[in-house]
Amino acid sequence: MYTTIIAPRVSDTDAVGHINNTVPPAWFEAGRADLFAEFRPDRSLENWPLIVKKYTITFDHETVYGRDVTVECRVASIGRTSLVLHETIVQDGRVSVTGEVVYVHVGEDRRPTPIPADIRERLTSQLEEDHV
Amino acid sequence: MYTTIIAPRVSDTDAVGHINNTVPPAWFEAGRADLFAEFRPDRSLENWPLIVKKYTITFDHETVYGRDVTVECRVASIGRTSLVLHETIVQDGRVSVTGEVVYVHVGEDRRPTPIPADIRERLTSQLEEDHV
Amino acid sequence: MYTTIIAPRVSDTDAVGHINNTVPPAWFEAGRADLFAEFRPDRSLENWPLIVKKYTITFDHETVYGRDVTVECRVASIGRTSLVLHETIVQDGRVSVTGEVVYVHVGEDRRPTPIPADIRERLTSQLEEDHV
Amino acid sequence: MYTTIIAPRVSDTDAVGHINNTVPPAWFEAGRADLFAEFRPDRSLENWPLIVKKYTITFDHETVYGRDVTVECRVASIGRTSLVLHETIVQDGRVSVTGEVVYVHVGEDRRPTPIPADIRERLTSQLEEDHV
Repeated sequence: MYTTIIAPRVSDTDAVGHINNTVPPAWFEAGRADLFAEFRPDRSLENWPLIVKKYTITFDHETVYGRDVTVECRVASIGRTSLVLHETIVQDGRVSVTGEVVYVHVGEDRRPTPIPADIRERLTSQLEEDHV
Repeated sequence: MYTTIIAPRVSDTDAVGHINNTVPPAWFEAGRADLFAEFRPDRSLENWPLIVKKYTITFDHETVYGRDVTVECRVASIGRTSLVLHETIVQDGRVSVTGEVVYVHVGEDRRPTPIPADIRERLTSQLEEDHV
Repeated sequence: MYTTIIAPRVSDTDAVGHINNTVPPAWFEAGRADLFAEFRPDRSLENWPLIVKKYTITFDHETVYGRDVTVECRVASIGRTSLVLHETIVQDGRVSVTGEVVYVHVGEDRRPTPIPADIRERLTSQLEEDHV
Repeated sequence: MYTTIIAPRVSDTDAVGHINNTVPPAWFEAGRADLFAEFRPDRSLENWPLIVKKYTITFDHETVYGRDVTVECRVASIGRTSLVLHETIVQDGRVSVTGEVVYVHVGEDRRPTPIPADIRERLTSQLEEDHV
């Protein structure tokens, strides 16, 4: 599991008074930085190999300004060329938002290409840890 | 159907070269402005009656800077206290992103409350037009 | 002068109730799209030739959700390798925000390089129109 | 001085390849969270007492994805009803962006009102520390 602490910003709130519903996708993407580094140890974005295919965001409770959130990112399943992540935003000890995202691994031609064996192995072992 | 033209911004792109995956939720929310006005003809945000419960974003093609997109928002179904919208982002004549969002209608106490009859009627007639 | 109509989004507001102070830079950048096209008629962003050196944003009045704004962008002065723009956000017939931005024109090596003569000429004639 | 560590996000980059010029205002606002708490120990945003009057952002070097930045926020001067902050974004040990922002302290009627004596005192002592 990858864990990232984020401080909600005033600019993340909206006039309704809470964190705007368009913000969690950016927090979740931020929470994938160390996962991205498995594919790109130098953290460069050139010829980026991961394309978002789909994501779902579910709101269980309001998220508010003033208290840090924890973004948790778990590898849920690994296909030949794809990757599913389960993500949660936790504030005040409870889950306020959950997410699921499907990535496709692509080559320089932007077409699906198998996830390299060494990365697959590291992600699989992590997947198992999360499910112990 | 509500139709909104949006010009992608440089700030909507990312270093991978296309519109970043976190941007469509903001475009879709922008595409609901006239739907929101059914609930709030004066377009004020005080005691805002619509809360996002869940949304799904699916990416079919890259969206790029330099050419306008059309955001289409259709009422897909209307429950007693909830509302489902189907949304698409169209660029260069083809759908690049689709979305589905579920809203819950709430009262001042932030608890689900029935969608008022007159609004339900207007949305229902629109739903039917879209399905002719 | 370049004129762009923008509909403020719910996601542009903050919990204080108005458009958040971090939003105008994105609106101003959006208002430069046609100016950018003078440098890049195909609107591609590869080897992008304009780098922001500095900008100032001044708030005269609150900008609010619910009513379109007009972003006006004027060429204020043209140097050998730089460009100054004066920008305003107008809502309800009055200026709510003003901006000034300084761009440096760069080559593929990211170093300052003279603005091409033909672009300089078009921008200069426009500058004169704005000052008639 | 208030110091905040921020991890640049993929969504903060643009197709030019670096952090987009519209992002630093949000990072600087994030870097003021503990200053804001001087005015609002409970970190609520209701009847928010600080309004941005003006800010200037200067770009010295590109800021890039992949390495944390430090946002430093210093109280530069304190007027009767206003406050000037000097801010820097530091990446890889050098300043990449500097900012100056002017806030006006307002009452519930949104009109300028003196900064309370106790807050002024705390900010003044901090101002002096920064200049030792």
